[in-house]
Amino acid sequence: MSIITLTTDLGLKDHYSSSLKGALLRQIPSATIIDISHEIAPYDCGQAAHVLGNAFHEFPIGTIHLVAVASGGSGMFNHVAIKFQDHYFVGCDNGVFSLLSPNNKLEQIIQIGLAGKEPSTFLARDLYLPAVIKLAQGIPIENLGIPQTKISELFRTISPPEIDVLKGVVVYIDQFNNIITNITGDDFDRIGKGRLFIIEVLREEIKELHRTYGDVPIGGLVAFFNSAGVLELAMNNGKMAALFNLKLNSIIRIKFS
Amino acid sequence: MSIITLTTDLGLKDHYSSSLKGALLRQIPSATIIDISHEIAPYDCGQAAHVLGNAFHEFPIGTIHLVAVASGGSGMFNHVAIKFQDHYFVGCDNGVFSLLSPNNKLEQIIQIGLAGKEPSTFLARDLYLPAVIKLAQGIPIENLGIPQTKISELFRTISPPEIDVLKGVVVYIDQFNNIITNITGDDFDRIGKGRLFIIEVLREEIKELHRTYGDVPIGGLVAFFNSAGVLELAMNNGKMAALFNLKLNSIIRIKFS
Amino acid sequence: MSIITLTTDLGLKDHYSSSLKGALLRQIPSATIIDISHEIAPYDCGQAAHVLGNAFHEFPIGTIHLVAVASGGSGMFNHVAIKFQDHYFVGCDNGVFSLLSPNNKLEQIIQIGLAGKEPSTFLARDLYLPAVIKLAQGIPIENLGIPQTKISELFRTISPPEIDVLKGVVVYIDQFNNIITNITGDDFDRIGKGRLFIIEVLREEIKELHRTYGDVPIGGLVAFFNSAGVLELAMNNGKMAALFNLKLNSIIRIKFS
Repeated sequence: MSIITLTTDLGLKDHYSSSLKGALLRQIPSATIIDISHEIAPYDCGQAAHVLGNAFHEFPIGTIHLVAVASGGSGMFNHVAIKFQDHYFVGCDNGVFSLLSPNNKLEQIIQIGLAGKEPSTFLARDLYLPAVIKLAQGIPIENLGIPQTKISELFRTISPPEIDVLKGVVVYIDQFNNIITNITGDDFDRIGKGRLFIIEVLREEIKELHRTYGDVPIGGLVAFFNSAGVLELAMNNGKMAALFNLKLNSIIRIKFS
Repeated sequence: MSIITLTTDLGLKDHYSSSLKGALLRQIPSATIIDISHEIAPYDCGQAAHVLGNAFHEFPIGTIHLVAVASGGSGMFNHVAIKFQDHYFVGCDNGVFSLLSPNNKLEQIIQIGLAGKEPSTFLARDLYLPAVIKLAQGIPIENLGIPQTKISELFRTISPPEIDVLKGVVVYIDQFNNIITNITGDDFDRIGKGRLFIIEVLREEIKELHRTYGDVPIGGLVAFFNSAGVLELAMNNGKMAALFNLKLNSIIRIKFS
Repeated sequence: MSIITLTTDLGLKDHYSSSLKGALLRQIPSATIIDISHEIAPYDCGQAAHVLGNAFHEFPIGTIHLVAVASGGSGMFNHVAIKFQDHYFVGCDNGVFSLLSPNNKLEQIIQIGLAGKEPSTFLARDLYLPAVIKLAQGIPIENLGIPQTKISELFRTISPPEIDVLKGVVVYIDQFNNIITNITGDDFDRIGKGRLFIIEVLREEIKELHRTYGDVPIGGLVAFFNSAGVLELAMNNGKMAALFNLKLNSIIRIKFS
């Protein structure tokens, strides 16, 4: 049985997401279809990458992830099928996939459609879905198109290397007002080397990593590396982003000593 | 395996849509249930007809579509099961089904409940669902009630016939601010007879039909007949309705020459 | 085949609800997963109890209901698996389950996690889901942890006993602006003993119970005991809460004579 997930900016008000499911069920009536989200903000590849990046590895190996964000078609990007960590991804090569794998270790990248040669205004159904169906039918990914060696990259803030400081930015604020940064656990270990540290947030300081919200009293701040491997900050039972006036691209600093 | 879709104004915040699914699974545990939308604006039959009309034909033949919009029960309309293009529809005969088939070529219309004789305040569960379940069990539609020859019609703007002009109105604005009109491809062909044309939108003119957004530069306007067969206008990567101040019932004119 | 429902305040914008589904499908690929709602307002146990309380009994016996509301973990509440009316419930013992069963006739309460000992920041996945999976695999509920005799109770407005008056409050306003109260049908029968009655709503009076909205003209008021057994008031085709300025905790009085 095929498990197919959908990550789109198509919303739940219009017919697009259900048209997609109908067309999929017409080909594979037994498919298990899971909405990762249809509420990605229009054209927001960063949000799509964050949501998909945190969710995909929870699914069984072999799951096929259709991604239709900003794919209405500006005619500027190619379209690809990708294999990564034994999952499959199909969508627009507009940078969203570069954030899935910080080191670009995508195993296979196959071009399934060319910029400016889109078949229709509804690419999710007319270009991505046929590729998804082929993968679900067991057709090898390399048979879907032409291999491509690189994918488009979305801008990634890079801090100048410092010995005692690790700097990053807020890349996402979730509905609980938790703060997701682009500081990876790998960088934290590499630069910190196990030293004491202070995460500076305005005048507050966080001096340890936590396992759960209950590690601090209500209103206290927790810091942890989330399931996508990046630093997340939150307030136990509170709205951290609002209270600390943190926004997208606000800078987060970690000082080691 | 039965595929059953739901199109309702019941929302996702309250228990109604999941109560409906629970009651359905209690009868048919293996049913595949697809939400077409639960975010139809309360009582908005026009939106329901637009969303369902674009989505239903993507589903496999034999799919059963439960429609619960404005069915809370004003006590003014009968309730029907309908067969159309080998799909089944069950819901309130309040006009929503008249928009599915512009020529009223519904194959079978069966009355399953009478205005003012509704069994409860939750018609989707207590009147429509039993009919859906019977259809899913293979009971012929004619066994569900009494045949009815006509259905209620929703108002439809009709342009006075002109030789060189085709006029219509905006009937829906989707979440991307694309414009859906009530101008059908059939009328376009019948009146246009292949002549050159200009679609007038404020001071902008569209002089050709497009296949995909990428046919024009970013910010350009595209026009195409969508999968429901009506004229749709959009801006590549832009919000057309907002930028052109187009609203429901704004007039769209096509001049042939 | 296991049917598993989800009632959470995790929203549909972030990855949480789909991460949960992915992790579930990884263990039980054939599970039928139904969203009761992910749009519970953050920390709103009252809304969760209302929505779940109305929906759960529609599902087949044996359904497992995962409830993750206000479970981010303040570290103040234990976590439980519960058996009630042949349904299973797993979640935080923060009071939400006390509203499911007004008389606290929960059949079994098993503690599956201790306040302050939460394994992670994502309890729905890391604590509740493993319990759900065990139940779905047929492991008896008593094997999941330690029996617990009582659950946390949410505040419940109790009227002083009066012979001729039954008083309650508005506990929920649904998206149609219908009014859900905490007046139970049991109390109505016990105090009313079949006498004539007047439900007072501002200067309007409702003197009978209704079966369906169509029992009154458009704009008329209906009163009925809903599927959760509590008094619900509504206006046929109108927005009662807004028009009558009724809010949470507004008092509703029934006078018997």
